[in-house]
Amino acid sequence: MSAPRPHHLGDMTTAEAAEAVTASPVVLIPAGAFEQHGPGLPLATDLIRAERVCDLVAAGLAGRAVIGPSLPVGVSPHHRAFAGTVSIRPATLAALVAEYAADLHRHGWRKLLVVTGHAGNNATLGTVAQELLGSLPELEFAWTPLTALAGDVVAGLGVSEVHGHSGEAETAQLLHLAPHLVRADRLTAGSTAFHQLTPLARLTRGGHPALALPYERLTPNGVLGDPTRVTPDDGAAVVDAIVSRLVAFVDAWLAA
Amino acid sequence: MSAPRPHHLGDMTTAEAAEAVTASPVVLIPAGAFEQHGPGLPLATDLIRAERVCDLVAAGLAGRAVIGPSLPVGVSPHHRAFAGTVSIRPATLAALVAEYAADLHRHGWRKLLVVTGHAGNNATLGTVAQELLGSLPELEFAWTPLTALAGDVVAGLGVSEVHGHSGEAETAQLLHLAPHLVRADRLTAGSTAFHQLTPLARLTRGGHPALALPYERLTPNGVLGDPTRVTPDDGAAVVDAIVSRLVAFVDAWLAA
Amino acid sequence: MSAPRPHHLGDMTTAEAAEAVTASPVVLIPAGAFEQHGPGLPLATDLIRAERVCDLVAAGLAGRAVIGPSLPVGVSPHHRAFAGTVSIRPATLAALVAEYAADLHRHGWRKLLVVTGHAGNNATLGTVAQELLGSLPELEFAWTPLTALAGDVVAGLGVSEVHGHSGEAETAQLLHLAPHLVRADRLTAGSTAFHQLTPLARLTRGGHPALALPYERLTPNGVLGDPTRVTPDDGAAVVDAIVSRLVAFVDAWLAA
Amino acid sequence: MSAPRPHHLGDMTTAEAAEAVTASPVVLIPAGAFEQHGPGLPLATDLIRAERVCDLVAAGLAGRAVIGPSLPVGVSPHHRAFAGTVSIRPATLAALVAEYAADLHRHGWRKLLVVTGHAGNNATLGTVAQELLGSLPELEFAWTPLTALAGDVVAGLGVSEVHGHSGEAETAQLLHLAPHLVRADRLTAGSTAFHQLTPLARLTRGGHPALALPYERLTPNGVLGDPTRVTPDDGAAVVDAIVSRLVAFVDAWLAA
Amino acid sequence: MSAPRPHHLGDMTTAEAAEAVTASPVVLIPAGAFEQHGPGLPLATDLIRAERVCDLVAAGLAGRAVIGPSLPVGVSPHHRAFAGTVSIRPATLAALVAEYAADLHRHGWRKLLVVTGHAGNNATLGTVAQELLGSLPELEFAWTPLTALAGDVVAGLGVSEVHGHSGEAETAQLLHLAPHLVRADRLTAGSTAFHQLTPLARLTRGGHPALALPYERLTPNGVLGDPTRVTPDDGAAVVDAIVSRLVAFVDAWLAA
Amino acid sequence: MSAPRPHHLGDMTTAEAAEAVTASPVVLIPAGAFEQHGPGLPLATDLIRAERVCDLVAAGLAGRAVIGPSLPVGVSPHHRAFAGTVSIRPATLAALVAEYAADLHRHGWRKLLVVTGHAGNNATLGTVAQELLGSLPELEFAWTPLTALAGDVVAGLGVSEVHGHSGEAETAQLLHLAPHLVRADRLTAGSTAFHQLTPLARLTRGGHPALALPYERLTPNGVLGDPTRVTPDDGAAVVDAIVSRLVAFVDAWLAA
Repeated sequence: MSAPRPHHLGDMTTAEAAEAVTASPVVLIPAGAFEQHGPGLPLATDLIRAERVCDLVAAGLAGRAVIGPSLPVGVSPHHRAFAGTVSIRPATLAALVAEYAADLHRHGWRKLLVVTGHAGNNATLGTVAQELLGSLPELEFAWTPLTALAGDVVAGLGVSEVHGHSGEAETAQLLHLAPHLVRADRLTAGSTAFHQLTPLARLTRGGHPALALPYERLTPNGVLGDPTRVTPDDGAAVVDAIVSRLVAFVDAWLAA
Repeated sequence: MSAPRPHHLGDMTTAEAAEAVTASPVVLIPAGAFEQHGPGLPLATDLIRAERVCDLVAAGLAGRAVIGPSLPVGVSPHHRAFAGTVSIRPATLAALVAEYAADLHRHGWRKLLVVTGHAGNNATLGTVAQELLGSLPELEFAWTPLTALAGDVVAGLGVSEVHGHSGEAETAQLLHLAPHLVRADRLTAGSTAFHQLTPLARLTRGGHPALALPYERLTPNGVLGDPTRVTPDDGAAVVDAIVSRLVAFVDAWLAA
Repeated sequence: MSAPRPHHLGDMTTAEAAEAVTASPVVLIPAGAFEQHGPGLPLATDLIRAERVCDLVAAGLAGRAVIGPSLPVGVSPHHRAFAGTVSIRPATLAALVAEYAADLHRHGWRKLLVVTGHAGNNATLGTVAQELLGSLPELEFAWTPLTALAGDVVAGLGVSEVHGHSGEAETAQLLHLAPHLVRADRLTAGSTAFHQLTPLARLTRGGHPALALPYERLTPNGVLGDPTRVTPDDGAAVVDAIVSRLVAFVDAWLAA
Repeated sequence: MSAPRPHHLGDMTTAEAAEAVTASPVVLIPAGAFEQHGPGLPLATDLIRAERVCDLVAAGLAGRAVIGPSLPVGVSPHHRAFAGTVSIRPATLAALVAEYAADLHRHGWRKLLVVTGHAGNNATLGTVAQELLGSLPELEFAWTPLTALAGDVVAGLGVSEVHGHSGEAETAQLLHLAPHLVRADRLTAGSTAFHQLTPLARLTRGGHPALALPYERLTPNGVLGDPTRVTPDDGAAVVDAIVSRLVAFVDAWLAA
Repeated sequence: MSAPRPHHLGDMTTAEAAEAVTASPVVLIPAGAFEQHGPGLPLATDLIRAERVCDLVAAGLAGRAVIGPSLPVGVSPHHRAFAGTVSIRPATLAALVAEYAADLHRHGWRKLLVVTGHAGNNATLGTVAQELLGSLPELEFAWTPLTALAGDVVAGLGVSEVHGHSGEAETAQLLHLAPHLVRADRLTAGSTAFHQLTPLARLTRGGHPALALPYERLTPNGVLGDPTRVTPDDGAAVVDAIVSRLVAFVDAWLAA
Repeated sequence: MSAPRPHHLGDMTTAEAAEAVTASPVVLIPAGAFEQHGPGLPLATDLIRAERVCDLVAAGLAGRAVIGPSLPVGVSPHHRAFAGTVSIRPATLAALVAEYAADLHRHGWRKLLVVTGHAGNNATLGTVAQELLGSLPELEFAWTPLTALAGDVVAGLGVSEVHGHSGEAETAQLLHLAPHLVRADRLTAGSTAFHQLTPLARLTRGGHPALALPYERLTPNGVLGDPTRVTPDDGAAVVDAIVSRLVAFVDAWLAA
C-alpha cells in the first residue's frame, strides 16, 4: 500500500500532529449523516461528499489545513421512517463537536471549520458556534454546508421546481465523487413539482416560517427533484465551485 | 381599565383557554432577546417587536390564533461584552420551547408558531423542530424570524452596505411599533461599509461558511448599519410586510 | 406614547444599563406561572402580580433597583389537568435563573432578588440559591414569594378554613393590581372547608410531611377558598404589606 | 449476632421484599447530610437522626412500613468551608430520589415518605415531588424534615434568640439518639443573639425574602444556638413529638 | 454506648476531619447495591460486604485511611425483575462519586479508593476515573471490586462450573461478615452448570464479547452457583485475601 | 471504481437496508479512538483496527452481519498530553451508542455488536449495556475489545514485562492490517520493564484496585512495550484469532 493520506490528522503520528499545529493552522472536520437517500444513493452520501470535499480543499490549501476526525452520523429525524437511517440528537452532535473543538484547541489550533454534507446539521452547528464564543473565546469556529456554496451552479443545472434531498445537486456530486456508490439504474425522480405536494408540504418549501415535516410526508421515495437528469460533469461543476469557495475562504481567513 | 387583551392566552381563564383550543387552533409564541441594541434602542427590542407583531398577526387572523407565553430572553452570547445583555444557553431555550410545546399539545393544540425577533434564536429553534418530530409527531411546529420575512422591503429602504443588528430595518420597526422606546437623538451609525470591518470581520458577512465573532469585533457601538436613515413609515412598511406574510402563512396552514 | 418605564432594564439602552450597575445595585426578577386560576382569574395571574409588585418596589426604592427580564412560566405540574396551564421543569427554571444571574453578575451586579408570584417556584429557587453559593460566591442571591410576606394581613381578611390558590388573598391582589383581568361575575368559591376534602387531600394541608397531589384532587374548579369575599381594598392592604416588606428588605440589604 | 433488623428492606431477601409490598405499603427513606455540625457533633448527624427516627416510626407502625435505602449525603454547599463536608448537587440528589422512587414503584409500592434530617434537602425534595406528579402519577410521594415537626416542643426548650444548625434542638436529638457520638465536653455555643450577626447575616434569619449565605458568614464555629443548654431528656421530648407526628401521618395516609 | 467508630469520617467532628486530612491521607468509599441476592441473602449484601471490608482495611492501616460516606445503591438494572431491587443510572452514580471526590479533594485529600461490593458498578467507576483525570488532575482516584481480588482463594473453594452472583464466594463472605443476615436454611443452588443455561445465556459467561442479559434469563432464583457448599471459614479466607490485598495496595500507594 | 463495499450499511441504499434487517440480523459497529500511539503509529490506529476487523468478521459471516456507522473518536483523557489526541466524554460516547442502537432497533435489528479497538471505551460500553437493558429490553447488545480476544496469541509473541498501548500486540496488528500507516523506522520501545516505572505507575499495572494515571506518567514516548519486536505475521496471527473468536461468537448468537 501507499503512504499515509496527506493532510489527514488520523494518519499522522503524535509527533507529526505536533508539527501540524503550526504548519497547518486550520482543522477541517467532515460531518455527514446516515440517512436514506432515495432509491439510488447510499445512506452515507453526506459523509462521503463531506470527506471528499475536505480532501480536495486540503489539497487546494497545500498543507495549510489538516483533516480531523469525522462526524459520520448527523441529525436526521425527518428521515427515520426510511430503513437504515440513524440519527443522533442535536445535543449529542453538539457535545461531539464541542469536545473535538476543546481538544484541538488544547493542542494549539485556533481555526476550526466543520464541513457538513447534511443540512440537517446546520442548526446544531449554529448553536455550537454560539456556545464556543463563551467556552473557548480564542477559538475561531466556522462551519459550512456544501451545496449551498454552489447555489448559482446548481441553478444553472436546470433543476426541478421542487428539488433538494437526493435530487439533482446531490446526485451530481456523488456521480462525480463516488460513482461506484450510485445505483444509476435505480435513480428515480421523487416529488418534482409543487402541485405534487400536499398543501401542508408546500408550506415547508418557502423558507420562513420554517415548518418541519418528516420526509415521508413530502415524497414517497425520499427524493426531492429528479436525480436522473444530471451527469458526473454536472457534479464536477458543483464540487469545483464548492471547493473553490472553501479554499478562498480559508485563504482569506489565514490572511486575516 | 379595559378588558383583557383579545387573543392573549395569559389573559384568559382556564375555561376560556379550553374553548380556545378549538376556536383558535394556532398558538403564537413571541420570542425575544435581552441584549444591547446600540446607543438608541432598548435591550428588549427583539421581544417588543415579536410581541407587537404577534398582536398584529393575531388581530389579522381574527381569533384563529392565540398568543401564548413569551420567551423574553434568547441566545445572545455575541453581545455579552455590552452592558445589560442577558443570554441563555441554546439548551435552555430549547428546553423552554419544548416544554411550552408539550403542554400546549397536551391541551389539544396541534399548530405552534414561534415568532422570534432575534435571529440568534434561529439555530436553537431549528434544533427544537427536529426534536419535536420525534417526541410529539402530531404537533406541527413552525418558527420564523421577523426581518427576514420582509427582505424585499428592507432592500428597498436603501440600506448601508453593511447593515443588520440595530441598523436600518430594526430601528425602523421600533420607530413604528414602540417609538417611545427609541432614543432618536442618540441613534448613531455603526459599521456601515465593508472597508470599516477588519479582514476577519468581513468573513462573517458572507453567509457560508459561517464564522461567529463577538459583536465588539464587528462594531464599536454595537450597530451594523445606519439607524438614523429610517423613519416610522419605513418601519410600517417592514412590519406590514411581515404581518401580511405571517397571516398568509397561517391562513394556508389552517386550510392545509 | 410616553417615555420608557423607569427602573425597567429592558427599556434601557446598553449605555443606561452600564450606569445602572452602580446607580441601581439591586436587580429584581419577576417570576410567574402560566396556570389555571379558577373560573375568574387569568392564567398569567402570578406573573402579573409579580411584575406589578416589582414596579411598586422599584418605585419605592427610588432608583436603587432595576427590574430585569421576567420569568413568565413556572413549575406548575399540579395544574396540568386544567386547560391552558403551561409548566416547565424545575431543572429548566433553575437553568434560566442561574443564567440570568451569571450574566447580570458578569456586568457587575451583586444583589439579585427574584420575586415569584407562584409558590410552585419556591423549591426550584431554593435549589438555585444553593447552586449559586458555589458557582458565583460573590453574588448575593435572594428570592421571595408574595403572599407569604403578608400573612398577617391575609389572616385579617377572614379567609376560609381552606384557602390558597385563586382564593381570597390572590383574588384580592388581582382586584387591586389588574381589575380589568378579573371576571368578577364568574368568581366562584372552591373547596373552602376541611370536610369538603377527601381524607387524602386533607393530608396536603398540614405543612409537613408534605404530600403533593394534582389540583383536580383538591378542588373541582381549581380554587381553594372563596374569592367572592374580597374587595380591591383588601388587595391594596395585602399588596401594601408585601411592597413595604420588600422595600424594607432591600433597604436593609443595601445598608448591610 | 441477632436477626435481621425488622422493617429494613435492605436486610430482607427478595422473597421477603415481595411480601412487604402488600404487607408494608409505605416505604420510608432516610435522608441525611455529610456536613460540619460544630465542635461537638459528628458529620453524619443528620443521617443518624433520620435513620433512627425511621426505625422508631417503623416500629410504631408495627410492620405497615419498611425502610428503604438511605440517602447518606445531601445538599450542603453552605457548609463547604468546614472540613469534612461533602455535598452533592440538587440535581444529583433529585435523580437519586426519583430513581429510588421509580424502582420501588415498579415493584408495586405506591406510598413513599422521605424523612430528611437535613433541611438543606428540602428544596430538592420539593422539586422531586413536582417531577413525580408527571412521571409517576399513581405514586403518592411525601417528604418531611425532622425538627420542624416538633416546633412547639423545641420552643418549649427555651432556645436562644438565634438558634438552628447544631444548636439546641439538633444536639438534644443526638444526645438522645446517639449519645456516644456527641463530644459533650466540646459542645460550644455559636451565634446565639441577633446582635452577634452582621447586618447581612441578620437578613438570612427572617424567613422571606430568603437570602443564602455560607455558614462561615453566620457563625465562626458552625453553630447557631447553644448546644450546651440541652439534655438527653430534651432530645427525647423532641424525638417523641417527631415520631408521633409521623406515625399519625402514616396512619391517616393508610386510612385515606 | 461506646465511642465513635474509629476511621469513620461520618462519626468525626469537623475539627477531627481537618486533622484526618493529613493524618489519614486515604479515603475509602464503600459502594454497594440494593438488589436481589437469591433466596438466602439480603438485598443490601453488597453494601454490607463493602462496609465491613472497609472497616477491616482501615483497621489494618492503623489510622492512615478514613472511611467516607457510603454509596448504598448501585447500578443493577439486570436484577430489576426481582422484588426489592433498586437501581440507579450509571450517570447518577457517576455524579455522586465525582461530587464526593470533588469535596474530599477540596478539603485536601488526594487519594480516594472506592471499594465496591457490586461488580455492576465497575463500568461506571471506570468512567468516573476517566472524567477525574480531566477535572481533578491532582487527585489519585482508585477503585476496586471485592471478590475479584481473591480469585485464587475462590477457585480453591471448589466452585460450581457456573458461579457468581449470590453463589459460593459471595455467600461465604456474608456468612463470615454478617451471619445474622444469612437465611442459611433457605440458601438454594441456582444455575450451576453450563448445560442448564440457554444457548443465549451461555454467551454471557465467556468474558468477551460481553453480552448483557437480565438475570431472570440466567437463573430462575437469581443465584449463579451453589451457596450451600460454603462455610464461614471459606468466607474468612476470601475476606482475608481481599483485605490483605487492599492493605498492601494502600501501603504501596502511600509509599509511592 | 468498483462496487459498494459488501456488508457496509453506509454503502447501501435505504431499500437494501430494509432487506438487510432480515438477511443480516447482526449489526457491527466499529469504535475507535483518536489518540497518540507513540512515535510510529497513527492517531487513528484503534479505529483502523476496529474497521478492518469488522470487515473481516462480516466477510467471515458471509452476509449475516452488516457494518453500521463508525464511532471514530473515543474516551482518551489519559492521552491528552500528547499532541493530536481528541477525546470525548463517556457521557457523549454513551449517548452516541445508545442513539445508534435506538434507531437500528427501530428499523428492526435486535442484535448489535460494538467492536472497539480502544480499551478506554470499555467502561462506557459497559454502562451503555446496562442502560439498554431498561430502555430497549428486546435488543441484545454486545460489545468487545480486540486484543483481549487473542490473549493467548499475544502471550505467545514473547511480549515485554510491561506491554500494552502501542506495544507489541497493537503494532503487530497494524503491520498486518495497515502497513502503509506504520512508520517502521520510527517505532521505538517505551516503558518495557517494571523497574522503569515509578512506584506510583507500577500500581496501575496490577488489575485491581484500578488506578488511573495520565500516560505521560507511565511512559515518556507514549508506548508500553517494544513495538520493534513484532512482524506482520505476528499481527496476522493476532488478527486471525480475534476474527475467529468473533465469527464464532456471532455464529453461536444467531443459533441461540
